[in-house]
Amino acid sequence: MKEKIIEYLANEDFKELKSFLSDANEADIAECLDELDKNDQAVVFRLLKKDEATDIFARMDPDTQENLIETLSDKEIASIISKMYIDDAVDLIDELPANLVTRVLDNSSVTKRQAINEMLKYPEDSAGSIMTTEYAQLDEDDTVEDAFDKIRRKGVNKETIYTIYVTDSGDRHLVGVTSAKDLLLADPKTKIKDIMEENVISVTTNEDKEEVAKMFDKYDFLAMPVVDSENRLVGIVTIDDAMDVMSEENEEDFEKMAAMAPSEEDYMKESVFSQYKNRIVWLLVLMLSSIVTGKIITGYENAFEALPILVSFIPMIMDTGGNCGSQASTMVIRALATDEVEPKDILKVWWKEIRIAMLVGGTLAIVNGVRIFIQYHDLPLSIVIGITLLFTAMLAKSLGCILPILAKALKLDPAYMASPMITTMVDACSLVIFFNVALMLMNI
Amino acid sequence: MKEKIIEYLANEDFKELKSFLSDANEADIAECLDELDKNDQAVVFRLLKKDEATDIFARMDPDTQENLIETLSDKEIASIISKMYIDDAVDLIDELPANLVTRVLDNSSVTKRQAINEMLKYPEDSAGSIMTTEYAQLDEDDTVEDAFDKIRRKGVNKETIYTIYVTDSGDRHLVGVTSAKDLLLADPKTKIKDIMEENVISVTTNEDKEEVAKMFDKYDFLAMPVVDSENRLVGIVTIDDAMDVMSEENEEDFEKMAAMAPSEEDYMKESVFSQYKNRIVWLLVLMLSSIVTGKIITGYENAFEALPILVSFIPMIMDTGGNCGSQASTMVIRALATDEVEPKDILKVWWKEIRIAMLVGGTLAIVNGVRIFIQYHDLPLSIVIGITLLFTAMLAKSLGCILPILAKALKLDPAYMASPMITTMVDACSLVIFFNVALMLMNI
Repeated sequence: MKEKIIEYLANEDFKELKSFLSDANEADIAECLDELDKNDQAVVFRLLKKDEATDIFARMDPDTQENLIETLSDKEIASIISKMYIDDAVDLIDELPANLVTRVLDNSSVTKRQAINEMLKYPEDSAGSIMTTEYAQLDEDDTVEDAFDKIRRKGVNKETIYTIYVTDSGDRHLVGVTSAKDLLLADPKTKIKDIMEENVISVTTNEDKEEVAKMFDKYDFLAMPVVDSENRLVGIVTIDDAMDVMSEENEEDFEKMAAMAPSEEDYMKESVFSQYKNRIVWLLVLMLSSIVTGKIITGYENAFEALPILVSFIPMIMDTGGNCGSQASTMVIRALATDEVEPKDILKVWWKEIRIAMLVGGTLAIVNGVRIFIQYHDLPLSIVIGITLLFTAMLAKSLGCILPILAKALKLDPAYMASPMITTMVDACSLVIFFNVALMLMNI
Repeated sequence: MKEKIIEYLANEDFKELKSFLSDANEADIAECLDELDKNDQAVVFRLLKKDEATDIFARMDPDTQENLIETLSDKEIASIISKMYIDDAVDLIDELPANLVTRVLDNSSVTKRQAINEMLKYPEDSAGSIMTTEYAQLDEDDTVEDAFDKIRRKGVNKETIYTIYVTDSGDRHLVGVTSAKDLLLADPKTKIKDIMEENVISVTTNEDKEEVAKMFDKYDFLAMPVVDSENRLVGIVTIDDAMDVMSEENEEDFEKMAAMAPSEEDYMKESVFSQYKNRIVWLLVLMLSSIVTGKIITGYENAFEALPILVSFIPMIMDTGGNCGSQASTMVIRALATDEVEPKDILKVWWKEIRIAMLVGGTLAIVNGVRIFIQYHDLPLSIVIGITLLFTAMLAKSLGCILPILAKALKLDPAYMASPMITTMVDACSLVIFFNVALMLMNI
C-alpha cells in the first residue's frame, strides 16, 4: 500500500490517490503516513476525506502528528481538533512541544480547551488520564423512545454508544447502565429505569489505570464508567484504551525483567544514547555485587590452587543457579502481576518452589554426577558437583520466589527482582556452597 | 463477597443468599464459585437466576465446570448447554474428560451438537477455533426497518450485535459491515447496502489466532468477521476472546524467555511435577553448553595457576556478558513479536546494538578499570578487565540481537533466544576473550 501511495505521488496523479485513499482503511492509511517523509505526509493528509481525516490523525504516531501540526494551516488544525475526541486530543497535547501545544489550544473552541485542561489535571497513571468525556448518557426517567431521539441527536459524536449510562435526574449520579442492544429489544414506551441494569461497576478518576485494564479483562466490558468522589459520572474508559494500557504494562515488565529502565518509545525509534541510558544504570548496579563474588573466590584461592579443575565448574554452577532462579522469579512475578499470588501466599509459594527445586536439583545432580564420573573417574568430585547443584537449585528457586513477593509487600516493583538480580545474588552463594562442599569432601 | 456466601451457606438462609446473588455481578459470582468447595458449588449454582446461570457457568474455571457437570442432573446440563454460546461450549468440551464430554453432547440439541463438532475440526491455533458462529447478519437488500425486526427477533441470542455483517442475497458472501449505531442514526427506509461500509476487513478460518488478536489492536475492532476460502461468512471473533489470546501469548513468551516450556495452567494450580517437567528440559540443554565452557577454562589452567586473581573476575565477566546480552535479546524479541522489527532489518538492528554496546562497554570498562586500579594498584590487570568488558559487551549485544532474528527467519520461536540461551553462549566466548587478553598483556 505504501508503495502504491509513493507511486501516485511520484506521478502526481492526485485524483487517483484521493479515490485510492477514500477506499482504504483508516488504520492502514495512518500506518503508511507514519512511514512517508515530512512533505508527502502533508500532501497525502490534505487528500483525505474530511470526515476520515481526524480519525486517521488520531491514529498516527506522535512525530507524524507533530510534523503535520507544524505544516498545516490554523484553519485545518481547528477543523481536526474540533472533530477529535477529548482523550485523543489530550494524548496529542501530552506529546507535543510547548510552542505547538499553544498553537493547538489557540485553534480549539473554548469548551474543548476547558475540557482538555480539565483532563490534564488527572495524575498520569489514573483512570482520569485515559478516560474520554464523550459518552452516551440517559436520564432514568427517559423512555426508550426519548433514548433513541437523544442518541440520534447526539450519538454521532459519542465515542461509544454500545454501553449507555443512566444518571439520576438530579446530580448526574451514576445509577444504572443499559445497552443499544437492550434498547432495540425493549418496548418504546418503557422507562429506562425499568430496563437498566442497576448494579453498575465503575471506577473513580484516581483509580490506577492498570487496575482498570484488569477489570476489562475480568468483566468483558466494552467501556468502564468513571465517577468522581461523589459518584457523579464524569467520563468513560473505552476498551481500546484499556488494551493499550495492558500492552504498555507488559512491554514495561519485559524491559524491567531484563534489567532496563522501561521506555515508552519503540525500539527502532529510540535513539542509541537513550537506550544506552536505559541499560547502563542496572549494569553498573549489578556489577557492584560481582565485586563481592570476586572477593569470595579469592578467599578460596587455596582450594582451586590445590585443585585447578574446580575452576572449570564455576560457569556451570553459576549458569544453572541463574537459570533455576529466573524460572522461579518469572513465574512468581507474572502471578503477582495478574493478582493470582499475593504477599500473604509467600509460604505456600516457597513450599511449592522448594519441592520443584528438589526434583530439578536432584535430576541435575544425578545427570552431572554420572557425566563427571565418566569424564574424570573421580567419585568425590562428582559427589561435590551433585551436592552443589542440588543446594544451588534450592537456594536459587527460594530467592527467585521470595524476593519478588517481598518487593511487592514493600510496594516496590517485583519485575526488578527478575533474572539479572537473582542471578547475581545466587552466584555468590552458590560459589560459597561449592567451595565449602569441595573443601569438606575432597581433603584439600 | 466469598465470605458472605459462605456465611449464608453456614446459616442455611438460602433465600437471603439467592437475592444476594441476583444483585451480584456475574464475573464476581463465577470467581467466588471457583473458590468454594465441591458441594457448595452445586448448592450455590442452583440458586442462580436461570438467565444468568449459563453466563456465570461459562466464566468459571474448567475444574469448577467439570465438577458441576458431574453433580448436575441431565435436565440442568441440557438447559445450560442450550443457552451457551458455541465458542464457550467448545471451550468447555476441550477441557472436559471424555466421559463428561459424551454426557454434555447427549444433553445438547442436534443442531448444537453439529455446530460444536464443526468447530472442533478447526486447527488449535486458528481463527476458526476461537470464533463464535452466533452473530448478527443482514442481507444487503434489507431496509433499516427490516434490520431492526431481524435484530429484535434474533438479537437476544447473538453474542454481539454492535457490529453487524452484511452478506449478498446469494451465497452469504461477506459484502459489507454496519453497526447498531449506524442503524439507529439512519432513516428506516434506506437499504442496508447504501449505509454499509463496503471494504470489510476479515480473516479466514485458518488465520493464526495471534495474528487476529494483533489486528484487533491495530483496527480497534469489537469483532472480526471470519470467512471460509470462498469468502462466505462463517463466524466472528469477539474482542474478549482476542484479549484472552493476547494475554495467553504474552504469558507464554515470559515463560519461554525464562527457559521454560510454556503452560496453560495458572501457577498456583499447576502441580509441582508438571512444573518440574516444564523447567528441567531447558536446564539440561543449557547445561550441555557449560561442559564446553568448562573445557575452555581447563585450557587456560596455566594462566590462572600463574595468576589466581584472574579467577575472581570470572563471575563479573560472565554476569555482565549475560546481562548485556539479555537486554538486547529482550528488546529485539519484543520488537519481533509486535512486528516492529522484521528479519530483513537484521543489519540495521545489529548496527544499532553495536553502537549501544560500545557506549555501555566503554562505560563499564572505565568504571571497572579505575576501581581495579585503586583496589589492586595493577595497571595491566585493569586494562585487561577493561578491554575484556568492552569486547564482551559488543559480543553479547551482537548475539542478543542476531540470534532472535535468525530464529524468526528460520520460522523458529525467537522467544527461546532469550537471556538463558544468550548467557550460556556469551559465557564461553567472554572467557576466551578474557584469558587471551590476559595472556597477551600480562606476560604470563
